[in-house]
Amino acid sequence: MTTNITMNDIVSLAKRRGFIFPGSEIYGGLANTWDYGPLGVELKNNIKKAWWKKFVQESPYNVGLDSAILMNPEVWVASGHVGGFNDPLMDCRECKARFRADKLIEDFMNQKGKEIVVDGWDNQKMQNFIRENNISCPKCGKSNFTEIRQFNLMFKTHQGVVEDSKSDIYLRPETAQGIFINFKNVQRSTRKKLPFGIAQIGKSFRNEITPGNFIFRTREFEQMELEFFCKPGEDLEWFTYWKEFCKNWLLDLGIKEKNIRLRDHSQEELSHYSNATTDIEYHFPFGWGELWGIADRTNFDLTQHQNHSSQDMSYLDPTSNEKYIPYCIEPSVGVDRVLLAFLIDAYKIEKLEKDTRIVLKLHPQLAPIKAAVLPLTKKLKDKAREVYELLSKKFMVEYDEIGSIGKRYRRQDEIGTPYCVTIDYDTLEDQSITIRDRDTMQQVRIAIEDLISFLESKIEDN
Amino acid sequence: MTTNITMNDIVSLAKRRGFIFPGSEIYGGLANTWDYGPLGVELKNNIKKAWWKKFVQESPYNVGLDSAILMNPEVWVASGHVGGFNDPLMDCRECKARFRADKLIEDFMNQKGKEIVVDGWDNQKMQNFIRENNISCPKCGKSNFTEIRQFNLMFKTHQGVVEDSKSDIYLRPETAQGIFINFKNVQRSTRKKLPFGIAQIGKSFRNEITPGNFIFRTREFEQMELEFFCKPGEDLEWFTYWKEFCKNWLLDLGIKEKNIRLRDHSQEELSHYSNATTDIEYHFPFGWGELWGIADRTNFDLTQHQNHSSQDMSYLDPTSNEKYIPYCIEPSVGVDRVLLAFLIDAYKIEKLEKDTRIVLKLHPQLAPIKAAVLPLTKKLKDKAREVYELLSKKFMVEYDEIGSIGKRYRRQDEIGTPYCVTIDYDTLEDQSITIRDRDTMQQVRIAIEDLISFLESKIEDN
Repeated sequence: MTTNITMNDIVSLAKRRGFIFPGSEIYGGLANTWDYGPLGVELKNNIKKAWWKKFVQESPYNVGLDSAILMNPEVWVASGHVGGFNDPLMDCRECKARFRADKLIEDFMNQKGKEIVVDGWDNQKMQNFIRENNISCPKCGKSNFTEIRQFNLMFKTHQGVVEDSKSDIYLRPETAQGIFINFKNVQRSTRKKLPFGIAQIGKSFRNEITPGNFIFRTREFEQMELEFFCKPGEDLEWFTYWKEFCKNWLLDLGIKEKNIRLRDHSQEELSHYSNATTDIEYHFPFGWGELWGIADRTNFDLTQHQNHSSQDMSYLDPTSNEKYIPYCIEPSVGVDRVLLAFLIDAYKIEKLEKDTRIVLKLHPQLAPIKAAVLPLTKKLKDKAREVYELLSKKFMVEYDEIGSIGKRYRRQDEIGTPYCVTIDYDTLEDQSITIRDRDTMQQVRIAIEDLISFLESKIEDN
Repeated sequence: MTTNITMNDIVSLAKRRGFIFPGSEIYGGLANTWDYGPLGVELKNNIKKAWWKKFVQESPYNVGLDSAILMNPEVWVASGHVGGFNDPLMDCRECKARFRADKLIEDFMNQKGKEIVVDGWDNQKMQNFIRENNISCPKCGKSNFTEIRQFNLMFKTHQGVVEDSKSDIYLRPETAQGIFINFKNVQRSTRKKLPFGIAQIGKSFRNEITPGNFIFRTREFEQMELEFFCKPGEDLEWFTYWKEFCKNWLLDLGIKEKNIRLRDHSQEELSHYSNATTDIEYHFPFGWGELWGIADRTNFDLTQHQNHSSQDMSYLDPTSNEKYIPYCIEPSVGVDRVLLAFLIDAYKIEKLEKDTRIVLKLHPQLAPIKAAVLPLTKKLKDKAREVYELLSKKFMVEYDEIGSIGKRYRRQDEIGTPYCVTIDYDTLEDQSITIRDRDTMQQVRIAIEDLISFLESKIEDN
């Protein structure tokens, strides 16, 4: 089923129902920015909550952090982003269109039905490949490209009142470095012993030349990152642990196993400091795409910061009395990207006896609205509002009295509401309501006083 | 008591215990940026959750939104920010120091023990006041200032590959405009009728020349804003409603009434389009400061966007069949600022029989850690971990086995943990634990199986 879904189905549902609107739409938009509407913000918050619950709240190892987007520019010198965080750009000499060389190659091969991974290639290798395969400009068809130039992906801005280069600062391109520079502060204040991790959710910015595929690649995006610090030598064990942990998080929240795959980076693709890297990829309608990168970054980042800041980044092991710079495992996932995967995975068109329905089979924990309160007729409004008020203290719920009950069910199916609570005339007599299940469409009758515990038991994860 | 607390007490506790660290500290910082540590991020998230619960989840009127930070620059032309969002700056001709003219005047008057509100004054009025009162440079003491120049507070950046002025974009200085430009999208997709509101939490950026007072004024900050749309003529009624609503939100979460005051803007201070504006101010150790601005903005913003975008922003009233541009009430509060108020309000130094303790009397809903699980001795570790695991599925809890039980209580007092759960040898026999209350320091013994419902009943708001 999933394979037949088009991006258009998702984009159109998202806009129609208030999940995601084009950013700055009334002004003609702004290059692939997106605004999360009333349902989208709930879905996004639920994803972040579910991640925080598993990666921080329930974890005996990890604590949270929320570092600033604006940091001292030295951070990005140390991390290597000022020097090396570049896209390889080429211009078509004929039509002046501009492209990423790696994307040119990937798209060219994909059109031939072949997959290729260009990550880790140097400029020369890409230029040779383009020449040898006679890859032409996708816009004008000519094969007359400039050499590759490196374009830094960080957004630059100025702070303070004087616009000189001394006041240049960057919008962070990842949340990870905010964690590394706080390693000692966190360790000291929490008195954590290795192994332990620091988790962070926040916005990052990359001046991508080719954002696209809806919310898959945007210049402004949100990340959920964990930096997990451990003793050197124990890193590969923990790498495996977190790889499984991340995969299970997706499966527990309903992602179908057939739609994900784990792809290990080859030696060539691997960063020079990395011991191992695996991408969890999702089968999007436009192909397999990276969802979650899990990397063993060794002690690269902490060492870089120690060297650049002259601050000691080492850890004194209280059991062995050894002093060392910890190794680090980094699982990093984009909120927007994983939200897109959840939407796609949940989207179903179902043939029923008399008609078809669109239904978002989101995990109840993720569903924006947990229950819709529907009076059978407007005359039952008062009782229905009473039930709505009761439930809204506990859950995100919706009240809807407009249209036939069948139409109201369809609307809730489309936005993924797991339960519809219908108030009828019997409700006034016996204080009971019917609950309709989104997936089975079965209805059961229960007492209003049991409603909260019924919903709680269904919505909480196991 | 509160009045004796210094900012230093708060800053030092915040750093020591992992609430808030100086941003980019290992690189010497970056002009008043701050990173929220493991406890700070929990406190901040709890504040945002408490706001969302009251302003969105439980509200029959309001829905949420999460619009992008990067928007089409036309948004800021229409809103007036490109033309008029300026600070009035003056340089000292002698020592070259740079000041905000309005702050110079306010500080000068405050030192004389007088309060003054300079908002709404034009340049001429400020210059005259400075000359007439012979205000001198706070740095060198001379009175030789330049004329006032206007300095725009928006951070500017470039997107795309070419750095020309065509690609200039801004970091949003407020979340509000992201709501206004989505008014129609939200109304259409939710089918909401007036009155209704759109709420948003998110980062904003202002290139303040004088950030300061810890997290009170920072260049990067987080806002919680509601834009509440209603029929013209009903605006002042709703203005009063939301003013009370905001005040009660603070009081319900434990802010002491004596520490807040409502200050109505005078006619002079009022923006030309505003029908009424009131600030809820908090009594910070450095004086009264704005916490929450509640403004009746009439139809100013929607009208501006209609004029600039040529998109219809009107609402067709289904009962009266009238068409009009709605009026709007805007309650706007800074997360960082209100977090600071909660910290200050909760901070107490208490004299006990034998010693003194620092205790953060945070509302249990806001407390970063809901309960600490403490084995009396390390031999009880296994049982204690079992209780920790049980609780961590429901709440943010901490496990601590280091140091004497008295020291562990003090540590939890200092970070505001409302309950300490102690595991002793009897626990192994009768499956019961003692719960110590942070504020009364009283202990009660209850069964482990009743622990979750005990904590739930205490933590939830009424």
